Amino acid sequence: MQSTISTQTELLAYYRSVRAQTQFLCDPLEIEDFVVQPVMDVSPLKWHLGHTTWFFETFVLKPNVKGYKEFHPKYPLLFNSYYISAGERWSRENRGQLTRPTVKEVFDYRSYVNNAMEEFLKTEISDETTNVVILGLNHEQQHQELFLYDIKRILGDNPLHPVYRQDVGSNSSLKTESKWLQIEEGTYDVGFEGQGFHFDNEKGRHKVFLHEFQIASQLVTNGEFLEFIKDDGYSNHMLWLSEAWDWVNQNGIRAPRYWSQEDGGAWWHYTLQGFEQIDPNDPLCHISYFEADAFARWKGCRLPTEQEWEVSCNTFSPEVSKSVNFVEDNNFRPVQTEDHSFFGNVWEWTASPYIAYPYYSPPEGALGEYNGKFMVNQMVLRGGSFGTPRNHIRSTYRNFFHPHLRWMFSGIRLAKHI
Amino acid sequence: MQSTISTQTELLAYYRSVRAQTQFLCDPLEIEDFVVQPVMDVSPLKWHLGHTTWFFETFVLKPNVKGYKEFHPKYPLLFNSYYISAGERWSRENRGQLTRPTVKEVFDYRSYVNNAMEEFLKTEISDETTNVVILGLNHEQQHQELFLYDIKRILGDNPLHPVYRQDVGSNSSLKTESKWLQIEEGTYDVGFEGQGFHFDNEKGRHKVFLHEFQIASQLVTNGEFLEFIKDDGYSNHMLWLSEAWDWVNQNGIRAPRYWSQEDGGAWWHYTLQGFEQIDPNDPLCHISYFEADAFARWKGCRLPTEQEWEVSCNTFSPEVSKSVNFVEDNNFRPVQTEDHSFFGNVWEWTASPYIAYPYYSPPEGALGEYNGKFMVNQMVLRGGSFGTPRNHIRSTYRNFFHPHLRWMFSGIRLAKHI
Amino acid sequence: MQSTISTQTELLAYYRSVRAQTQFLCDPLEIEDFVVQPVMDVSPLKWHLGHTTWFFETFVLKPNVKGYKEFHPKYPLLFNSYYISAGERWSRENRGQLTRPTVKEVFDYRSYVNNAMEEFLKTEISDETTNVVILGLNHEQQHQELFLYDIKRILGDNPLHPVYRQDVGSNSSLKTESKWLQIEEGTYDVGFEGQGFHFDNEKGRHKVFLHEFQIASQLVTNGEFLEFIKDDGYSNHMLWLSEAWDWVNQNGIRAPRYWSQEDGGAWWHYTLQGFEQIDPNDPLCHISYFEADAFARWKGCRLPTEQEWEVSCNTFSPEVSKSVNFVEDNNFRPVQTEDHSFFGNVWEWTASPYIAYPYYSPPEGALGEYNGKFMVNQMVLRGGSFGTPRNHIRSTYRNFFHPHLRWMFSGIRLAKHI
Amino acid sequence: MQSTISTQTELLAYYRSVRAQTQFLCDPLEIEDFVVQPVMDVSPLKWHLGHTTWFFETFVLKPNVKGYKEFHPKYPLLFNSYYISAGERWSRENRGQLTRPTVKEVFDYRSYVNNAMEEFLKTEISDETTNVVILGLNHEQQHQELFLYDIKRILGDNPLHPVYRQDVGSNSSLKTESKWLQIEEGTYDVGFEGQGFHFDNEKGRHKVFLHEFQIASQLVTNGEFLEFIKDDGYSNHMLWLSEAWDWVNQNGIRAPRYWSQEDGGAWWHYTLQGFEQIDPNDPLCHISYFEADAFARWKGCRLPTEQEWEVSCNTFSPEVSKSVNFVEDNNFRPVQTEDHSFFGNVWEWTASPYIAYPYYSPPEGALGEYNGKFMVNQMVLRGGSFGTPRNHIRSTYRNFFHPHLRWMFSGIRLAKHI
Repeated sequence: MQSTISTQTELLAYYRSVRAQTQFLCDPLEIEDFVVQPVMDVSPLKWHLGHTTWFFETFVLKPNVKGYKEFHPKYPLLFNSYYISAGERWSRENRGQLTRPTVKEVFDYRSYVNNAMEEFLKTEISDETTNVVILGLNHEQQHQELFLYDIKRILGDNPLHPVYRQDVGSNSSLKTESKWLQIEEGTYDVGFEGQGFHFDNEKGRHKVFLHEFQIASQLVTNGEFLEFIKDDGYSNHMLWLSEAWDWVNQNGIRAPRYWSQEDGGAWWHYTLQGFEQIDPNDPLCHISYFEADAFARWKGCRLPTEQEWEVSCNTFSPEVSKSVNFVEDNNFRPVQTEDHSFFGNVWEWTASPYIAYPYYSPPEGALGEYNGKFMVNQMVLRGGSFGTPRNHIRSTYRNFFHPHLRWMFSGIRLAKHI
Repeated sequence: MQSTISTQTELLAYYRSVRAQTQFLCDPLEIEDFVVQPVMDVSPLKWHLGHTTWFFETFVLKPNVKGYKEFHPKYPLLFNSYYISAGERWSRENRGQLTRPTVKEVFDYRSYVNNAMEEFLKTEISDETTNVVILGLNHEQQHQELFLYDIKRILGDNPLHPVYRQDVGSNSSLKTESKWLQIEEGTYDVGFEGQGFHFDNEKGRHKVFLHEFQIASQLVTNGEFLEFIKDDGYSNHMLWLSEAWDWVNQNGIRAPRYWSQEDGGAWWHYTLQGFEQIDPNDPLCHISYFEADAFARWKGCRLPTEQEWEVSCNTFSPEVSKSVNFVEDNNFRPVQTEDHSFFGNVWEWTASPYIAYPYYSPPEGALGEYNGKFMVNQMVLRGGSFGTPRNHIRSTYRNFFHPHLRWMFSGIRLAKHI
Repeated sequence: MQSTISTQTELLAYYRSVRAQTQFLCDPLEIEDFVVQPVMDVSPLKWHLGHTTWFFETFVLKPNVKGYKEFHPKYPLLFNSYYISAGERWSRENRGQLTRPTVKEVFDYRSYVNNAMEEFLKTEISDETTNVVILGLNHEQQHQELFLYDIKRILGDNPLHPVYRQDVGSNSSLKTESKWLQIEEGTYDVGFEGQGFHFDNEKGRHKVFLHEFQIASQLVTNGEFLEFIKDDGYSNHMLWLSEAWDWVNQNGIRAPRYWSQEDGGAWWHYTLQGFEQIDPNDPLCHISYFEADAFARWKGCRLPTEQEWEVSCNTFSPEVSKSVNFVEDNNFRPVQTEDHSFFGNVWEWTASPYIAYPYYSPPEGALGEYNGKFMVNQMVLRGGSFGTPRNHIRSTYRNFFHPHLRWMFSGIRLAKHI
Repeated sequence: MQSTISTQTELLAYYRSVRAQTQFLCDPLEIEDFVVQPVMDVSPLKWHLGHTTWFFETFVLKPNVKGYKEFHPKYPLLFNSYYISAGERWSRENRGQLTRPTVKEVFDYRSYVNNAMEEFLKTEISDETTNVVILGLNHEQQHQELFLYDIKRILGDNPLHPVYRQDVGSNSSLKTESKWLQIEEGTYDVGFEGQGFHFDNEKGRHKVFLHEFQIASQLVTNGEFLEFIKDDGYSNHMLWLSEAWDWVNQNGIRAPRYWSQEDGGAWWHYTLQGFEQIDPNDPLCHISYFEADAFARWKGCRLPTEQEWEVSCNTFSPEVSKSVNFVEDNNFRPVQTEDHSFFGNVWEWTASPYIAYPYYSPPEGALGEYNGKFMVNQMVLRGGSFGTPRNHIRSTYRNFFHPHLRWMFSGIRLAKHI
């Protein structure tokens, strides 16, 4: 969608829809849910609301709107995330200490900035500024997804098992068997090229040589992972990377995040619809890279590289519009699908560390800190999830997380050489 | 007051007044303020509300009210503090992760238990049960004070400097000079004896031999401590215990908690009335034992032992009723006083580690865990503070904290040998 | 012995004997044993050798011997321990990183300083300097004992179980039953008074009031402690202080230090004579305060205060010379004794935190850092051990350690009220 | 050399020469130097000696020599490194606690195994076993280099600045200017192919597509890095990866490892020849990936990928034999060279995370743990160093370290796109 923004009217509509979606995600929550930060990787929900608003105030309104009066002189301190060039920041690990501003005050901040943005978007604005607005909206969409990860992290460890949403969509269907899809050896083009929005880290169409390989048409399911558990996969050191083995043992990892074995031996998990028994046919979710890698090894397979994934996606499943289970489908969980889409459901770990593409260079100024400075010690995931807005994803889109993390909506698509 | 509870009518009135006071302390707060736990020593405010209620449900209602139905089957898990004998507990360091139950649900819990307690207190109850009720009310009073420490800790580091209460009392007056009060050498009696309520740790009148000493009639002031700072007290290792010196340097301690030196060099501090310039005549507050000890050494004095303090208090300031600045005075801060009371204002560090009195033995069962198991590595404080209920304090009352802590309302009274 | 140093000839003989004893303790060791530092509390053995030598060079030779040339300009940096006033120090936690100077070079340093000291002690020296020499010798004796703790710590965890010494003394005898010795209520004098050597922390005869109590004539044995283990003492939270319970669980404590249960269930322990089965009649050793306190509670007893211990010792066992099992007895382990001595064998935990006596004041200058700055969060032990030189101990001698430590030679003597 | 092992006589000679070289590296050291472990990444030197010997005992002698009697039943426990499949291991972080076996005993172990190996290598042995012997010798060569890193780490922080070796080679010469060497766009082959020894991680000739790039003919010098320091490179966050920036600030990094700015402002560094002023023309050494990456960014360049490096090396500097400054040159430091060799001097950081090549699969059994399990969160370095045996390196050789490490001999070769 944003790739086709060509008028200011469209831009305004896009702005409204993204900002409204954030509000929609907040609706089922209690005030208390917005405040806490159980671990550093999770931000308080009200911080997300303030931070995405600060982005527009800082990078759009202040530089462009003459006489713009900032909402509160201390909010930049509180709501800057990691943009060192954009000034002082409240330390990330202490975000959960701040009970003020209240949730209502943060929503007032949103309204104030929304009003200013609406005014501003009705004036004539430069292409460069349009691009910053679109970046800000994509940025907010990324935070919408983080928001869902963080909601689940906050509610999911609570022994009361609070329900986030029960009024969910129902486009799940019977899962078909996974097939092996094949790509021939050769030189392929990967990376973004064209007119629409894209992040700096995916920019630059370039060539890669791929050797012949096969990739699964379907995601790994809970049932397949239960086989790994039953086969003592978590206790077999030969399956694990050395750092993964330390992680497993130091943290007593015995199952995916949010899973627990209840009396009688059945496996349950917390979902955004509450605590329920695991359906073996559902796609697996909440898996670290370490677990994905060990599982693939146990299967005699491997994870695809991000280049293999992108070429496969472009070959077998190029259209996002034909895929199911994005955030607008309101499932808030993985679903079984008949088709073989590479998009939606869960992010798919690849075997590729997150590094720069050839010719990569970040933008000038604070926005240059958006992506490039994270290019070490993280792994690439592809394809989007049930928490991703449909118009946010592309086959060239590169997501990235540290290999031990698993509070995000991450799963596995297998690959192998022939 | 509670020392004179002789009828169930009085007990009921006492119950109502203590429980109402907790509510009063909550009134100025926002929902957000009740949820967070910035460090392990601080508990979420709603946890205090639930925990003090759980005490009555667990130790009064369940054992004594036939057919009593507990409010929620998981609340014991969530609101037990450290009573291992009373069953499983949610880990203390993770209290701040629980956004549910909501604040409203916790208040519903309070109402539910209040109703049951009101019913119960109208029936005939045994002396033993009366004692547990009175213990529960003293327990709640202790948590009222912790509640104030924790409010200040939660609001006090927020760069927005939120005000807790502005409608405060005004019984402050011009401070008179401190004098040296003298106690002669001899054998003295200390410890609680008599009929009223008391904790197990203060029980057992016993003899101690004191050598002649002098004790200050007034608390140390902010102004006196500023002299210590100006004399580079925080940089002079000869003044500090070895562990204190490590603490100072590892934490970059340069002033009491909540103090900061602003542009221009003036010292300000956060108070429950907001951020304001320090009044040099006010009693010093938010001092660790380490700082109290170093300051006393710098002054060529020392801290009194708890026995010296108790004997001095009994000699020079025996009546709590004549003292000023308890929580009911609604000052919520130290005030200057003309008289030489040993009670109220700020807790006074003593030179005494918290250990058992001769003949000490804890009660049987879970309530035996109340005091005795903390008798190592902590120091005794005496006298109560502006956060203490007036009817809660006694000359024999032993408070205790680790020597590095200072988020509580702690100050200094000097002593010396002659 | 040192209490009777009255001539320089005696002083020189005393100097020679102490320095020779350090050498004697080194004899059975390999060069490798002198270098490592397994935990911060343990210092490399060669560091002890250098540090005790540095003491004489710094506090005796440099201030008093005109033209004295220090052995090496960087040794003060390397061998100062915690005397901030005496200049920069190599950080304690990194002592084990220094492979140089070699052990031979450190012995050369000792010889160099010994030669200078011998010269110096043949000249006329002031009383004040004599006192510093005597302090330095007592200091070296303390390090001789630490040296043995550290040897045991270094060899004791090695799976090869190296033997330190097999040629040990044999003055052990059949243990007699413990009896309860009684002290009547009253005012007693404690603390050092008189002419001989003493540390600042024991100085100042003063009065204490003691209530009637009983104290055991014998130390607790391994066999008694095995009963505690068999009764699940380590799993019964009601026996433990709160911090002790955390310590037990976080460290998986299930027995005294160096004990292990071998196949078949028998308990063995590492001793300085090697790995051997535990003799139930031997005095218990390598116990933390936490364990001593829990054991006493399990027995329905308590630990004596340091004042109770001192009065009892003065009453029932005043003469060190009649006691057995000091370091010169060359047992290097606890032994069973027929008599009821309060001296030797193992240090006895008391219930007393280590704090200042009334009127305590440390010496001026760097030597004022010797004792006073450790007076918080540690507990007093009394009586000396099989690692203590006989002429080093007194009934007023106050040793102190943190309550969780147990690599030193520590045991239990029980007390109780009547 | 080992790539041409074709007879058992050659194998025996090769065995002798590698084992003798280890002895040669030990010659200048004191016994004390062999024992300590200043940080977990460093192993005690005697552990290296035992571990490389254990390799032959475990993987060659025990499986192949009937009746072989192991030297000591506990040495496998002590000298296994990370081969979980090969049995229990003493924990890596506690290697520095073991003073026994003594250095002499470890050398006895080496002799014992050498004798058995000499016997064995004179018998007829299978190709598979030959390969394990050759692997063991390459393994020992890797430990020879680690040995030098660890010697420098152990001696280099000692304030006495001990000299390791002064009798060094002298093949340094005037450095020529660096030129930009160019590689054209195209598909290239990388990875090992052929008959000689190679590790599993470099195996599998495969195709990669490279875009046109330039690579420097010379290593970055100390002088160039001093410019970076003078330009406040360590204080400019825009130059650093986010994790690198945290590392710089948390560790106070202001210069390469072993550098220090002395009075007067001159930069000195510890070398294996002692403490000396930095020569600006020498190749830079002891640099983390984080610093290499930041420096390249500051230069407007980047690091080469490992594929770019390998193709460049094969193109411009294919012959190891023509390169200078390997361990046999006995320089024990980087030297200036006239030629443009890609081999020797210092390992060169690449921009490539260490991951599996296509078709990678590790060997069966314990030796499968050699390389594969480290393929996450580390970066590839290429080319060998002054600590590498000349016959150990190849253009396909992949070394790898975590991006924050810098105690190894690591430096920078720049690359750029055109």
